[in-house]
Amino acid sequence: MENCIFCKIVSKEIPAHIVYEDDSFIAFLDTHPQSPGHTLVIPKKHYRWVWDMPNVGEYFEIVRKIALAQRKAFSVELVLSRIVGEEIPHAHIWVFPDRIAANVAKIDDYEGNKQRIIDAL
Amino acid sequence: MENCIFCKIVSKEIPAHIVYEDDSFIAFLDTHPQSPGHTLVIPKKHYRWVWDMPNVGEYFEIVRKIALAQRKAFSVELVLSRIVGEEIPHAHIWVFPDRIAANVAKIDDYEGNKQRIIDAL
Repeated sequence: MENCIFCKIVSKEIPAHIVYEDDSFIAFLDTHPQSPGHTLVIPKKHYRWVWDMPNVGEYFEIVRKIALAQRKAFSVELVLSRIVGEEIPHAHIWVFPDRIAANVAKIDDYEGNKQRIIDAL
Repeated sequence: MENCIFCKIVSKEIPAHIVYEDDSFIAFLDTHPQSPGHTLVIPKKHYRWVWDMPNVGEYFEIVRKIALAQRKAFSVELVLSRIVGEEIPHAHIWVFPDRIAANVAKIDDYEGNKQRIIDAL
């Protein structure tokens, strides 16, 4: 969709710290992280809300992949997830480690945190 | 698991306002709702974390069913979801309508809100 920031990340017009990508989904670091490694998982196709998507099962399998990688990458047991969606009108799911992840990684070390997640996937 | 409140809801030892149930999952109203109709969706089998479950795709299809029913039941577009899990050690997903749902339903009308969701499913 025109003027959608997330569509522009999908098309690579806007750069992002991408940790995962397949034919249908892309996952990248949030630029306002709740904790180190905070990731957004989005469908490549533009949907307004997560609930509008026919393939949420497949979507959530990807979210789980990222959550399991974050556990390993940041040595935490607790990984949180949120579906909100008022700020950016393109379906997205937050997935982010417990704040104690700050013991092993800097919240603003995007390159390092991206690499940690990729290595753990 | 012994002494797990959610396992006791699954086995019906503890009553709950159940809005949905199948062989693998059960959904019931949260007793400390964020908004009218705030629902918890849990697997019947005890898992500590959502991320430990092999069938998260199937799980999330149920969460979506509830979200779509809440939209209809409470005349809202926005439905939120959260995965936290520190308070009760049994995997659970929150799904709850926008707080403007309070325009059409009382937050503490558990019987009424349960019926609204069931009717919309």
